[in-house]
Amino acid sequence: MSSPDVTMGPEEAEAPVDAETLLMYRIERPVCDEDFFRTELHRKEKSTNLRQRLAQRFRCSSGKAKAALFTFLPILTWLPSYPVKEYLFSDVVSGLSTGVVQLPQGLAYAMLAAVPPVYGLYSSFYPVLLYTFFGTSRHISVGTFAVISLMIGGVAVREAPDNMFLVFPANGSNMSAVLDVEKRDARRVQVAVVLTTLVGIIQFVLGLLRFGFVAIYLTEPLVRGFTTAAAVHVVVSQLKYLLGVKTQRFSGPLAVIYSVKAVFYDIKSTNVTTLILGLSCLIFLYGIKDLNERFKKKLPIPIPGEIIVVMVSTGVSFGLSLSNDYKVDVVGKIPTGLLPPAAPMFSLLPNLITDSFAVAIVGFSMGISLAKIFALKHGYSVDGNQELIALGICNFISSFFQTFAITCSMSRSLVQESTGGKTQIAGLLASLVVLLVVVAIGFVFQPLPQTALAAIIMVNLLGMFKQFRDIPTLWRTSKIELAIWLVAFVASVLLGLDYGLLVAITFGILTVIYRTQSAKSAVLGHVSGTGLYCDVDEYEEAAEYEGIKIFHSNSSIYFANSDLYVNALKEKTGVTPEDLQAARKAQKKLQDKVNGNYKSLLKKSAKHKEPGENNEILSQSHFEEEQRNGQLGDRHSETDSEEAAVHFIVLDWSSASFIDSVGAKAIKQVIKEYAAVDVTVVIAGCSRSLLSELDSLQFFNETVTPEMVFPTVHDAVLRCQHSKPRPSAATNQ
Amino acid sequence: MSSPDVTMGPEEAEAPVDAETLLMYRIERPVCDEDFFRTELHRKEKSTNLRQRLAQRFRCSSGKAKAALFTFLPILTWLPSYPVKEYLFSDVVSGLSTGVVQLPQGLAYAMLAAVPPVYGLYSSFYPVLLYTFFGTSRHISVGTFAVISLMIGGVAVREAPDNMFLVFPANGSNMSAVLDVEKRDARRVQVAVVLTTLVGIIQFVLGLLRFGFVAIYLTEPLVRGFTTAAAVHVVVSQLKYLLGVKTQRFSGPLAVIYSVKAVFYDIKSTNVTTLILGLSCLIFLYGIKDLNERFKKKLPIPIPGEIIVVMVSTGVSFGLSLSNDYKVDVVGKIPTGLLPPAAPMFSLLPNLITDSFAVAIVGFSMGISLAKIFALKHGYSVDGNQELIALGICNFISSFFQTFAITCSMSRSLVQESTGGKTQIAGLLASLVVLLVVVAIGFVFQPLPQTALAAIIMVNLLGMFKQFRDIPTLWRTSKIELAIWLVAFVASVLLGLDYGLLVAITFGILTVIYRTQSAKSAVLGHVSGTGLYCDVDEYEEAAEYEGIKIFHSNSSIYFANSDLYVNALKEKTGVTPEDLQAARKAQKKLQDKVNGNYKSLLKKSAKHKEPGENNEILSQSHFEEEQRNGQLGDRHSETDSEEAAVHFIVLDWSSASFIDSVGAKAIKQVIKEYAAVDVTVVIAGCSRSLLSELDSLQFFNETVTPEMVFPTVHDAVLRCQHSKPRPSAATNQ
Repeated sequence: MSSPDVTMGPEEAEAPVDAETLLMYRIERPVCDEDFFRTELHRKEKSTNLRQRLAQRFRCSSGKAKAALFTFLPILTWLPSYPVKEYLFSDVVSGLSTGVVQLPQGLAYAMLAAVPPVYGLYSSFYPVLLYTFFGTSRHISVGTFAVISLMIGGVAVREAPDNMFLVFPANGSNMSAVLDVEKRDARRVQVAVVLTTLVGIIQFVLGLLRFGFVAIYLTEPLVRGFTTAAAVHVVVSQLKYLLGVKTQRFSGPLAVIYSVKAVFYDIKSTNVTTLILGLSCLIFLYGIKDLNERFKKKLPIPIPGEIIVVMVSTGVSFGLSLSNDYKVDVVGKIPTGLLPPAAPMFSLLPNLITDSFAVAIVGFSMGISLAKIFALKHGYSVDGNQELIALGICNFISSFFQTFAITCSMSRSLVQESTGGKTQIAGLLASLVVLLVVVAIGFVFQPLPQTALAAIIMVNLLGMFKQFRDIPTLWRTSKIELAIWLVAFVASVLLGLDYGLLVAITFGILTVIYRTQSAKSAVLGHVSGTGLYCDVDEYEEAAEYEGIKIFHSNSSIYFANSDLYVNALKEKTGVTPEDLQAARKAQKKLQDKVNGNYKSLLKKSAKHKEPGENNEILSQSHFEEEQRNGQLGDRHSETDSEEAAVHFIVLDWSSASFIDSVGAKAIKQVIKEYAAVDVTVVIAGCSRSLLSELDSLQFFNETVTPEMVFPTVHDAVLRCQHSKPRPSAATNQ
Repeated sequence: MSSPDVTMGPEEAEAPVDAETLLMYRIERPVCDEDFFRTELHRKEKSTNLRQRLAQRFRCSSGKAKAALFTFLPILTWLPSYPVKEYLFSDVVSGLSTGVVQLPQGLAYAMLAAVPPVYGLYSSFYPVLLYTFFGTSRHISVGTFAVISLMIGGVAVREAPDNMFLVFPANGSNMSAVLDVEKRDARRVQVAVVLTTLVGIIQFVLGLLRFGFVAIYLTEPLVRGFTTAAAVHVVVSQLKYLLGVKTQRFSGPLAVIYSVKAVFYDIKSTNVTTLILGLSCLIFLYGIKDLNERFKKKLPIPIPGEIIVVMVSTGVSFGLSLSNDYKVDVVGKIPTGLLPPAAPMFSLLPNLITDSFAVAIVGFSMGISLAKIFALKHGYSVDGNQELIALGICNFISSFFQTFAITCSMSRSLVQESTGGKTQIAGLLASLVVLLVVVAIGFVFQPLPQTALAAIIMVNLLGMFKQFRDIPTLWRTSKIELAIWLVAFVASVLLGLDYGLLVAITFGILTVIYRTQSAKSAVLGHVSGTGLYCDVDEYEEAAEYEGIKIFHSNSSIYFANSDLYVNALKEKTGVTPEDLQAARKAQKKLQDKVNGNYKSLLKKSAKHKEPGENNEILSQSHFEEEQRNGQLGDRHSETDSEEAAVHFIVLDWSSASFIDSVGAKAIKQVIKEYAAVDVTVVIAGCSRSLLSELDSLQFFNETVTPEMVFPTVHDAVLRCQHSKPRPSAATNQ
């Protein structure tokens, strides 16, 4: 068997004549069924058993220990061989550029996280520093990220709402309550910090457990719908800063609507100076962004629009003392220096578990998707689980220094990469830039107007609104994925990012179930002389063999679709055991009547439960069946005669990937039902893994044998053509 | 093309020599790819468009109206042709037997539903009567059912707990509070009734919407695990009646544990008379059950053990006045006659929505599964959606007459069928038996001890404990289904039936996702001369072709497993673009070094981002890859040389049933990556429906063409063997 077969085409076609036309598919062999595989072929013995494999898996060796250390601390693999001459200059340029972007973004995203701006600076320093040691991606810039910051902000506001910190003046009862901003902010910082600790723990543990794969459930349309919704949330939350209107911040379901309502309700109190300043920043930043994109190739480094806005607006604010004279809201107190480490307030923890899962997973999936893009572009690989561990460590350790949760940011990572960053050294330098500001010149930014930060946030998020263009694209390519996008978007806008994400993931998973259930089924016909089988409804050349129906369905057969499969089989082939049974009974009854022994029939039918009334109902349903077939097309117009002539049904299982006990039972039942009316059902194109599942489900017994299973449809058809049809009661009587 | 081809085997093999050995599979045709399908074959035009189909669907006609009426009122189809002579006697015997069982079960299950016993009788009359008109199953006996009753009881107890009805005596403060049983029971009835109304509405609407299919998500292992858990709940809830201990009834998560604890805490107050009476009933019933099963064939009708127990224990209780003299709890007041219809208290509705969904779906799925079993046995068909409508109507209308939700009961249905019931007339008669008792002799049962009812319930549920035997069976056949069984059981026992069901369904759905993700993949080899391809690790005869790797995976390619697919591809074939790229780069560098132009290299690599350090990391990862391969077996020991020689990868997609945009992108990316290292990836065995999905996903472009898609693996292999490998940098330099 192992010697090359002479009937194979290849050898002859080596001739130098036009190979394309001569290349032939030529097979000549006995028709084979599953029995051939079980008796003729030799199974290889598995070389290792489970215990050996486990032993191998958990064996310790210095090599393994070293590999584990290298995996856990990737810096050990690249730093010792860091080519200083080649890389350092690029890394320095890139690091400084990134740091300059990181600074304003840190300040701005702290506003989204509902904590004072300086915490954004802390969050732009510690985790970035730590990532240098643990991260495997050389190009992503970790740090504050709009969506995550917003999610944290939502939680912080929920756990420490404004009305918890209203102070009623002690002396008079007529005066309205005053908001104790400092106390509120301190509480919100505590909430954000504990959340971050928890996020870190979750990410670290998931990483250790090799659960990096959870991110795959966030399919692309889901992430895009979700981030678009996040952009809506961000813009809505920043409206009040842009307008200088003082409204409450909302969280939870329908927060977007409440926020917009609150802003418009208070629109008369718009601070015109704030608005003008904000709009100027917005337009300027948008212009710079546009310039950067247009002259990408020509600019050595992108114009750092954000730091310009921060510096100029700070200068203007300071020079004109906007805060005092024009009541423009400014950043306010920025303490110089770092805070000593402190334990997070773990008493807040129980309320934050769900939220922290959401933040952990969104954060990781943003990070890993971006890391993969850059890794692919530059030809190295990132380790999903190690990334998860790295982010976990960054968040966990940093949270003791009062940071909020981070991941990587798209815009910054692009800056880091496009300015020539080569390794994690660039990130390290960026963090040092932030450190410098924190310990030395933080106070400089105290007069920075909040509206400038709102402008920075909004312009950063504008790109996400472009994702609305997905809708027409998805409409054309995949309705299911469009549905995922829309569900993710609508749910996240209306229910908030946490519940929205949950709903979107659930919906995404249900679409998979739907896909496995919404199978397309077809009756196949042979394209003459090719051994290939196609849908007879689709191709003119596909011709059915007399007496043989080939049913194909591109679905697995398991509990949720075994019924659908059986129904489709009966409907598509037009051959139902019930009809055949009814036809046979009717015929038998007729014959009995003709034979005159009507009385014996009555007796018999009362005993055997084959009542005459049965036939009426059955022929009724038969009538409906015919009607239905008539509506579907004219293919089944001669259903009756066709049906009676069908003696074989071939189930093409080549597209089935798995089967469970419910499915196996249903198929067995179908085989039995058809066997009762002299129709033989055989199975074709079953994959080896499906067959081993069938074996462990004890599918094969004395009636259902491996001889009924064929490797290809053509094998099955050939065998059917040459098996004599069993003596059929319907035709022979 | 449409004329029969002479190369086809069948014609010759018609010769009368042993057909089995001579039957040949013979194909000779040009190798074809997807292009062949697109250009050579002719697509049939679809005869009807969407609008026409819709018009056809919604066209009205008297035939359609009649069919709809017949579907809605199945009694119209069978009653006019009811063969009185043949059927009536059997139906009367069966109806009376069933009624005799229905009576004690009605009384007993009312205890489970936490309402006074008479409501169980109402529930055994109205819905049974209505089902005669609307039901399609001729053999199931609808009425009270243990699991449903228990679920209702749980809700009733939750909404009207004992401590809501404690009355503190007005005069003294030292006396303990007294439970106002009447008020409590009235409230519980209201809750049960509203729940039933809601269940009816849900079932009816689901039926109208053709949502009968929801029951398919209740896969068999799930239902069996769930009902076993229900049996545990039932037995635990009846313990106190059996022992005569007065404890609170618990509901919600961990209710089972609290109940057992409460009973054991109070075990000293066991009423010995109650216990002896209960145990006697239990043993007697179990004996009768055993007898009935053993002499199934010889007994014309099963011995009605339950009614004997009810009558004898009522007699004993009355004669010895157990209630007064021995403090045995008895049924108590049973009002004679029916209640006038009354609107349910809809104000209770909002709290019950989740519960009613659970009850509606469990009730329906119990009913339909039993109905299907009998229909199959007796050769008629039941309509799932009409069954849903029928149950909905039964529950909805009956609830105005103070009943609680019903479905069919296994034990009663078996009685009805085994005593010769032919049609729904049997059910009608059973309901009349109950009616007779309610309007005439209900008061007779007032001294019936509750412990006898507890015994009846327990013995009925004993069968369900046999389902524990599923565990070893499932362990052998399917670990996944065992997991579903166990999750359904444990969750339902611990969390209660409602949450348990939710958890079990969620878990069941996730297992499908897991199945689609946990694909088995293999490298295929040709079984020489057959055109068949098998796993090279499994069969000795399967031989790989030089330079061609065939990768098979029995999975669809969508968002949750596209990464897994690509990883499996790279690992199984041992050919990774990264390694090839690294090998090429290393070679190039070596060559450059040899050429002596080291300086120009330095310059170049700085510019082109092909740093030397890259190679180190890559060869590091290459080293790890080799190590991993080494652990997997010795197949990849010569990975390097093998890898370099592979120029084609054939992706066998015959087992893939669907693809989404994420999957398509991943495959495109893989094709691109491999193309960059001169490995051509082609696709084989793709089903027509998958191809149309690929088309709508715009998978094919100038680089990925339909010429890369082949109908069979063998076509793809033949084409690959005769395409000249592209000039490869790795081998040619």
